Amino acid sequence: MGMTITEKIFAKAAGKESVKAGDIVNAKIDVIMCHDVTTPPAISMLKEKGIDTVFDPDKIVVTPDHFQPAKDIKSAELHKRLDTWCKEKGITNYYKLGKAGVCHALLPEQGHIRPGEVIVGGDSHTCTYGAFGAFSSGIGSTDLAAAIATGELWFKVPASLKFILNGKLSEGVYSKDVILEVIRQIGTDGALYMAMEFVGDALKDMTMEARMTITNMAIEAGGKSGIIGVDEVTKKYLTETLKDTSEYDVFESDGDAEYVKTIKIDCGALEPMVAKPHLPSNGAPISECAGLEMDQAYIGSCTNGRIEDLRIAAEILKGKEVAIRTIVVPATPEIWKQCIDEGLAEIFYDAGCVVSAPTCGACLGGFMGILAEGERCVSTTNRNFVGRMGHPKSEVYLASPATAAASAIEGKLTDPRKYM
Amino acid sequence: MGMTITEKIFAKAAGKESVKAGDIVNAKIDVIMCHDVTTPPAISMLKEKGIDTVFDPDKIVVTPDHFQPAKDIKSAELHKRLDTWCKEKGITNYYKLGKAGVCHALLPEQGHIRPGEVIVGGDSHTCTYGAFGAFSSGIGSTDLAAAIATGELWFKVPASLKFILNGKLSEGVYSKDVILEVIRQIGTDGALYMAMEFVGDALKDMTMEARMTITNMAIEAGGKSGIIGVDEVTKKYLTETLKDTSEYDVFESDGDAEYVKTIKIDCGALEPMVAKPHLPSNGAPISECAGLEMDQAYIGSCTNGRIEDLRIAAEILKGKEVAIRTIVVPATPEIWKQCIDEGLAEIFYDAGCVVSAPTCGACLGGFMGILAEGERCVSTTNRNFVGRMGHPKSEVYLASPATAAASAIEGKLTDPRKYM
Repeated sequence: MGMTITEKIFAKAAGKESVKAGDIVNAKIDVIMCHDVTTPPAISMLKEKGIDTVFDPDKIVVTPDHFQPAKDIKSAELHKRLDTWCKEKGITNYYKLGKAGVCHALLPEQGHIRPGEVIVGGDSHTCTYGAFGAFSSGIGSTDLAAAIATGELWFKVPASLKFILNGKLSEGVYSKDVILEVIRQIGTDGALYMAMEFVGDALKDMTMEARMTITNMAIEAGGKSGIIGVDEVTKKYLTETLKDTSEYDVFESDGDAEYVKTIKIDCGALEPMVAKPHLPSNGAPISECAGLEMDQAYIGSCTNGRIEDLRIAAEILKGKEVAIRTIVVPATPEIWKQCIDEGLAEIFYDAGCVVSAPTCGACLGGFMGILAEGERCVSTTNRNFVGRMGHPKSEVYLASPATAAASAIEGKLTDPRKYM
Repeated sequence: MGMTITEKIFAKAAGKESVKAGDIVNAKIDVIMCHDVTTPPAISMLKEKGIDTVFDPDKIVVTPDHFQPAKDIKSAELHKRLDTWCKEKGITNYYKLGKAGVCHALLPEQGHIRPGEVIVGGDSHTCTYGAFGAFSSGIGSTDLAAAIATGELWFKVPASLKFILNGKLSEGVYSKDVILEVIRQIGTDGALYMAMEFVGDALKDMTMEARMTITNMAIEAGGKSGIIGVDEVTKKYLTETLKDTSEYDVFESDGDAEYVKTIKIDCGALEPMVAKPHLPSNGAPISECAGLEMDQAYIGSCTNGRIEDLRIAAEILKGKEVAIRTIVVPATPEIWKQCIDEGLAEIFYDAGCVVSAPTCGACLGGFMGILAEGERCVSTTNRNFVGRMGHPKSEVYLASPATAAASAIEGKLTDPRKYM
């Protein structure tokens, strides 16, 4: 029996010839992502245990992102603890304010993600990095503390679900729509503790940015990870970004690898999707929900705050005026800068949007765009749970940057193809 | 006995031939400034009293600024109430998110401030507008409610203090340094309920932006208002900005007008000033405090978040790298856009600063740059009270944009002339 790409990565990380789904393995961790919410508790745990060292100060990448610039005294204290710890431990990849950005956009952009590796982070959307043919998963503060101290963690090797993404996306339909359709089909627990492996010719047309939107949301179907194999698109991105340019391992699933299930998605048949409150699985084609009035549009986050997303939104907003509060959040300082250099910032300004400094901000109900009672927001983020972006009686509608931009113009859910 | 400019404005507003300091007058209000913190309570008061109308929907200028984009559910609710009210009352000058900015920078920029008028606002730094030869003062929510309903308020005509600003500011010394010196000399209650009238040849070299920095801080000496007479600089600014281009009244203090006191400041002798914690009157020349380590620099606010301020900061930061967290907050969307058009945003990015969307934010300990325990911030804002920008054990050092920028580069209080 052959192995899946995920099994192969774990075999390597565990120093074994082969592993299979369900095996308990001890895996070496290649990269640990740390941010301002879950890392300070991990630091406290390590201190309590009297553990004073980190396994490798070069393999821990730190950025405050959830509440930066500090939104209140509590978050200022979190940032301070993170800052002190980074200096004490000599963390080499510490992106502090000014260089800090939304972690899942920042780490690939800054060349910290390599195929074939095992990456963990104190954030549920750490699954994003699977777009690079790596195993990547979110962990809690306790596991984070263990990983920081030892550079190892035990895992039950996840079984895999295969998604064959076929066809060609039609105009106005994006990878966000694909993943919303996937989650609609399998539900929020449809991939519980599984690796969601995406294959198929529709991926060929997708940039790394678009692919990251897909793997980013694996957790929204309960997935332990999302993964996409390496191809020329991946290699090109890595050539431009990698800091460590030593060879990396490119694994591929064997033809006879075992999958719990295989699901085919005809991407060519998709229309723009909207996940209605209060679950990411509550997807519906835009034709079924267009016209619903919104109070705010939010374009940003680790799901859709990359330069490609902002270009798509700007293309639609160019020369138009938004009818509702519209907040654009480039996910990293580099994206923010590109946004200016390419003239997107000007388009957003002219359209009446606010362009924020990089932060996770409103996506998680943090700050910079919180909703009042009864308000509705069309958002390019990944979660629309009750109260996710503010008041328990507010509502979040997940969509692509194109749909969010078109909806901003009309002040109601709008098919983006109307503006193409 | 002649009248001061302030007495003349009140005589006109009260429909009298003349008034004198100490008189109780009923004055017609020309402009009311409303923001997201103090206006919602005023709206509630009016509702409780069953008062359903506003005196003039064209004379009320509304902008959310303190906590926008909404920093939490509470502020989202404030914004929602403001929004609903503006729509209900047909407020014509409502700057919502995307057009919203720090009120005291926004109103002059958008042409709502005219010489000779009586302007009130639900914010203590409403005294800023006095730079245009108007009487302008901050009021509480109760007075705000009365003004909104009736378009009138009673005032005790303030006595005046005259400040003669002579000489020429040397390089690296700005109007912020002048006002910090003024407040150092007279103390935080040195102008209690008085109109602080600024005259003198040093003003001639000051732009309207620089003048607004001076009148902005009148309240920090306890002043009821700050005022600067109209000259060619004022007229030029007004030609470029005024929405209502009808004639305005230019008043001048009579030669024999009465002043409580006249204070001369030799501006040419000043060096860059820093107001140390925890009072704006705690000023010291930079030579006495340079070298003190900082954790954050903040360049923005209604005191120093205008384009001229950002140009000054950028000039110093160009080609340099900041050593500490540095947050730049253009005060309005227009300034934000200018910042991009003029290449300042790029300079800030290259130097490692974060450029925020317009908001009052951290200045008042709101969000977007709050301080942790023990942290020190060099800030271009107007208040350094205990806990003003965060933790009660944090410290704020008030300074000019030049001093803040130079200090950002070195990570400690620094004489900006070192970088000129």
